[in-house]
Amino acid sequence: MTNVELDELRARLDEINGQLLELISERAQVVQEIGVVKEKQGVPKFDPEREKAMLEKLVASNKGPFTAGTIRSLFKQIFAASLDLQSAEHKKSLLVSRKSHKEDTVIVLPGDIAIGGLSSVMVAGPCSVESEQQTRTVAAALQKAGIKVMRGGAFKPRTSPYDFQGLGMDGLRILREAADEYGLLTISEIVDPAHLEPALDYVDIIQIGARNMQNFELLKAAGELNKPVLLKRGLAATMEEFLHAAEYIMSRGNTQVMLIERGIRTYEKWTRNTLDISAVPILKQESHLPVLVDVTHSTGRKDILIPCAKAALAAGADGIMVEVHPDPATALSDAAQQLNIEEFNTFFSEVKASGLFRQN
Amino acid sequence: MTNVELDELRARLDEINGQLLELISERAQVVQEIGVVKEKQGVPKFDPEREKAMLEKLVASNKGPFTAGTIRSLFKQIFAASLDLQSAEHKKSLLVSRKSHKEDTVIVLPGDIAIGGLSSVMVAGPCSVESEQQTRTVAAALQKAGIKVMRGGAFKPRTSPYDFQGLGMDGLRILREAADEYGLLTISEIVDPAHLEPALDYVDIIQIGARNMQNFELLKAAGELNKPVLLKRGLAATMEEFLHAAEYIMSRGNTQVMLIERGIRTYEKWTRNTLDISAVPILKQESHLPVLVDVTHSTGRKDILIPCAKAALAAGADGIMVEVHPDPATALSDAAQQLNIEEFNTFFSEVKASGLFRQN
Amino acid sequence: MTNVELDELRARLDEINGQLLELISERAQVVQEIGVVKEKQGVPKFDPEREKAMLEKLVASNKGPFTAGTIRSLFKQIFAASLDLQSAEHKKSLLVSRKSHKEDTVIVLPGDIAIGGLSSVMVAGPCSVESEQQTRTVAAALQKAGIKVMRGGAFKPRTSPYDFQGLGMDGLRILREAADEYGLLTISEIVDPAHLEPALDYVDIIQIGARNMQNFELLKAAGELNKPVLLKRGLAATMEEFLHAAEYIMSRGNTQVMLIERGIRTYEKWTRNTLDISAVPILKQESHLPVLVDVTHSTGRKDILIPCAKAALAAGADGIMVEVHPDPATALSDAAQQLNIEEFNTFFSEVKASGLFRQN
Amino acid sequence: MTNVELDELRARLDEINGQLLELISERAQVVQEIGVVKEKQGVPKFDPEREKAMLEKLVASNKGPFTAGTIRSLFKQIFAASLDLQSAEHKKSLLVSRKSHKEDTVIVLPGDIAIGGLSSVMVAGPCSVESEQQTRTVAAALQKAGIKVMRGGAFKPRTSPYDFQGLGMDGLRILREAADEYGLLTISEIVDPAHLEPALDYVDIIQIGARNMQNFELLKAAGELNKPVLLKRGLAATMEEFLHAAEYIMSRGNTQVMLIERGIRTYEKWTRNTLDISAVPILKQESHLPVLVDVTHSTGRKDILIPCAKAALAAGADGIMVEVHPDPATALSDAAQQLNIEEFNTFFSEVKASGLFRQN
Repeated sequence: MTNVELDELRARLDEINGQLLELISERAQVVQEIGVVKEKQGVPKFDPEREKAMLEKLVASNKGPFTAGTIRSLFKQIFAASLDLQSAEHKKSLLVSRKSHKEDTVIVLPGDIAIGGLSSVMVAGPCSVESEQQTRTVAAALQKAGIKVMRGGAFKPRTSPYDFQGLGMDGLRILREAADEYGLLTISEIVDPAHLEPALDYVDIIQIGARNMQNFELLKAAGELNKPVLLKRGLAATMEEFLHAAEYIMSRGNTQVMLIERGIRTYEKWTRNTLDISAVPILKQESHLPVLVDVTHSTGRKDILIPCAKAALAAGADGIMVEVHPDPATALSDAAQQLNIEEFNTFFSEVKASGLFRQN
Repeated sequence: MTNVELDELRARLDEINGQLLELISERAQVVQEIGVVKEKQGVPKFDPEREKAMLEKLVASNKGPFTAGTIRSLFKQIFAASLDLQSAEHKKSLLVSRKSHKEDTVIVLPGDIAIGGLSSVMVAGPCSVESEQQTRTVAAALQKAGIKVMRGGAFKPRTSPYDFQGLGMDGLRILREAADEYGLLTISEIVDPAHLEPALDYVDIIQIGARNMQNFELLKAAGELNKPVLLKRGLAATMEEFLHAAEYIMSRGNTQVMLIERGIRTYEKWTRNTLDISAVPILKQESHLPVLVDVTHSTGRKDILIPCAKAALAAGADGIMVEVHPDPATALSDAAQQLNIEEFNTFFSEVKASGLFRQN
Repeated sequence: MTNVELDELRARLDEINGQLLELISERAQVVQEIGVVKEKQGVPKFDPEREKAMLEKLVASNKGPFTAGTIRSLFKQIFAASLDLQSAEHKKSLLVSRKSHKEDTVIVLPGDIAIGGLSSVMVAGPCSVESEQQTRTVAAALQKAGIKVMRGGAFKPRTSPYDFQGLGMDGLRILREAADEYGLLTISEIVDPAHLEPALDYVDIIQIGARNMQNFELLKAAGELNKPVLLKRGLAATMEEFLHAAEYIMSRGNTQVMLIERGIRTYEKWTRNTLDISAVPILKQESHLPVLVDVTHSTGRKDILIPCAKAALAAGADGIMVEVHPDPATALSDAAQQLNIEEFNTFFSEVKASGLFRQN
Repeated sequence: MTNVELDELRARLDEINGQLLELISERAQVVQEIGVVKEKQGVPKFDPEREKAMLEKLVASNKGPFTAGTIRSLFKQIFAASLDLQSAEHKKSLLVSRKSHKEDTVIVLPGDIAIGGLSSVMVAGPCSVESEQQTRTVAAALQKAGIKVMRGGAFKPRTSPYDFQGLGMDGLRILREAADEYGLLTISEIVDPAHLEPALDYVDIIQIGARNMQNFELLKAAGELNKPVLLKRGLAATMEEFLHAAEYIMSRGNTQVMLIERGIRTYEKWTRNTLDISAVPILKQESHLPVLVDVTHSTGRKDILIPCAKAALAAGADGIMVEVHPDPATALSDAAQQLNIEEFNTFFSEVKASGLFRQN
């Protein structure tokens, strides 16, 4: 056999490719027409029994050289592509997706504080609200440093039922009062759908924590609100699951959603979690939502917060969250990893000095 | 220097060891007395400020050769040991712990079906309750196979808000009716605290799913019930977190708790999750609660369910959970991994034939 | 539009499916013919430039409704299937695969000891060979217990260069002498290709350790030998990588390969590694090689060795490896996890009593 | 009981603390003296049998309230601290540690190219050296872009023995010639100790790859050379293991070691590995060695290389490694993730434009 013959075989291949393309395209059009009918009839587009029957017919007609398994696999791909097309046409893509909303979402908070736009945001405050004095001390320090948004936990999801569980609604009240006194906005975690409504008076941003990232009832309830929501990535959630959790909120009508990477669980022992820095550009690319990074929980180590915050901003994060406590050694939760006020001031100065923190 | 001198040095070491022992023991007694006082006064036993002050004093007095860091670390160990002693004396250890309850907990269900005793249990049924007919078909097959407990999801926590979310309360009703018709008990997942009460009429065992293992509000609410609870290990939960999640339920008064291992998230791609078989003996050792293994979710592969179920029983599991569907290819969830009825019959026969499934 | 019209659309779909099947099959035949030509010419079958050109042509001709991306993706699948077919015809599948060798491989050792057949094997011995006395003490105990194969490390891959690195060739000699005295076979890890030849006099089975699972030079060198090789799964190797590592050995001609699961690295802290029990049935299914389980390294805990060994056998493992030391507290490596002789005797008795250990 | 009594108890506690401190310090001195004797006698300092005897004696004398377990644990800590002291005095700490070498190590290459000092380095080149033309094309582009160090694989560790294994010594020669023509330095991976010597003529930096990070024989052999070594972090290596692997090289005398983070294996599927950005500041803090980041392998995605490279530099990395190929689609390895030359130019421009790449 000569190269001439090889060329002939290749020409035949090109011909077949062209015919396949025509048939696949026609097939897609027929599927689209069927989709229109189904849409009108209100029946689901995916019909597994029909797909199964088609596959069986194909396998029965197959005379080789492909095995039944390969035929099944190839046609499943073709079927799925047609179905995707149908979905893409008649149903919007994910609301969180940049495909459905090209521009960056900017969350505008009271006092015209914006998250997600041209300026970076630094969210700081104690792990837990413990007392009026502790909270006011931090609030005063934050105001002085030029911080606009203060965090503080009132409902604390703790591994053990015997650990400090937070001050609850009292904690929210203390946080609000301290924040008002020092001109700050507030963010605090809510863990029970029933607490969302009452919390609205006290918090400017609802936080949904890592352990509740797939507490879908909570997500749905938060989706009914007209209040910004900061959603934390789960302990071992994939980015895909993270975006779908945000979709639960958005699909209920609340478009003010922010994502926050907080480290994922790995085998490494020198950090509390592993800060998944690549999640920042990927989430920014896949979605239009603001993306923050919680440097405290992702590392669990005070001594690397500055480089990690810089890395987060360099990777494109819209903001940083960090824990600050007047006296970390006596904190009722996360004692080892909170910055004291002096450390926080150094931290924030160095982050600003890097030029990576965009101030407006 | 001779060996004589070495022996002298060693004798001095033994002497110091003895003196250290005496002092450490006396120290522990003093801490216990302080604990009694604090108990009466109702103040927390751990006083971080006092500990900090003691450490600073020690470091200030330290003339070497240990560094300040080593002194801090050694005395923190000594302080922690004393504090543990105090806790152990005045507060019960974890309720889930075998230390507080030596015998195996046996959950007795209606019809004198027991989980956790001398016999093994096989829990089977569809991933989701989809229709009356589908549920009755499975129920009939289970009865015929000698199964006593049927699973079936009515509230499905799904990654995407656009996936089938289950039939809700209707699903529970369908499950109950089919189960009653075929003399079976029911188990179904509840995801919202508000649904626990209404579910009591339909389910004999409340399941709390992997995604909700640290939904502490749900755990607390389940702890208020007088109904057995099956708690699934979280997607990437440590065993310690798993036991503490069970403690949330027990600490509210509900002692009828069962644990179920369902695979953990790892890098391996040939299985959906990695079945952590060592969790079975460790959980049995650390706690007195029944331990089951969900072979379907831990592997995500039908072709290894038999050896994995045998392994689970050989490792000491009290039972197995497996998904069965009359026509898996058309299932609305987990289509790929459910057994059809014939496959289930083979599965159950082979598991029984191994002699590892203890039948009473 | 009526259901009649829906039926018509579906009929057209079936027709197109049939035409696609014909074209895809014809395409595959043409690719096979091209493969024959290339085989003769000795040129590689995969030609990425040609594939790229074909894809570009298709995308250029595409008039929708599929996007260029979907067309690319579908045709890549079709191209890959054809190429696989070509490979499957002209090149054998993996030598480790059960597709290329249906029957279980049985490794026959001196004294007609078989691994991988109808009987189970228990491999036991110290982590490291430390002295003649220590090794002889273990060997005597193993003989008494009816063990046939003794392990003992002479070249120890240790995390720190300052840890005990093993006795090297001296260790192998000590192991051989003790084994000969008590009628045992030997297995020991080799880490340097240069040591393989000299080791042949001392060991009956060459072990390649977890850290060297992808030390391909060592694998290739072991593949040149006529001596059984026990290959450990890497610390975080996928099963696919594990089988390909075995393929490196087999592709050089050595067919006497055994696989051993030894736990994978996960976030869980209560075990040293996570024993991936599902790997046992999957490896047995995918390959024809004997599969063992190292219960010591996979768990790192003496207190769960019995249930884990039973689980391994119930899952289909051909054997178990366990570490035994006359005085574990003084061991130069792995002090915490080795069984002493009495503990080993209990362990082995209980494993045998379960009926899961098949004795011939 | 009154607060007065509480104060008295606390005073007694302080007194005991002081006495414990004195005894512990005296104990440490005695252990140091014993260490001096042992040093002279050449016997190992850690004597597990002696430690065991001391512990047994203490447990036997223990009258409570601590349990035997707590006593054992506390004294093991005290013993270990004394032993550490002994080691710290008489043996240097790890050579890789910043404690033994405070200043940053700067590797000076021919042509006064420095890695690890005040300027950043960009290492670029193809995954594999495939041909003279391909290599020269890249070299020309790199020279034009101002790159000084070119990478190119000649010995490729591939998962499958049937994948392209690299051109071997021929590949090194091609790399050297292209590099010389365009005034570049070379870096290439060596996998076999036997190839190190011959490679010295061709490469300016020896790379040890992720799969060989714990191939200790290779590390030791590289430690004998007078040539810079770039050590990649293993697929699932902890930072501690990574530093100890570097110690293997340094302990043999070669002080020119660089570390490179290349992503760790996690459950996340949207990236090939997870870039552990926190490893950069921790490795810089713990060790004095230069730390680079391989953005190609850590992400496996071209579309996020720019933000990830910026993040790495912001976190303190001394350099970046990235793969460039004239025509990635036809590459013999890693086809999907290599940049083409135009993409590389954009990448490098944007990284430089960020101001994070320090040019001298």
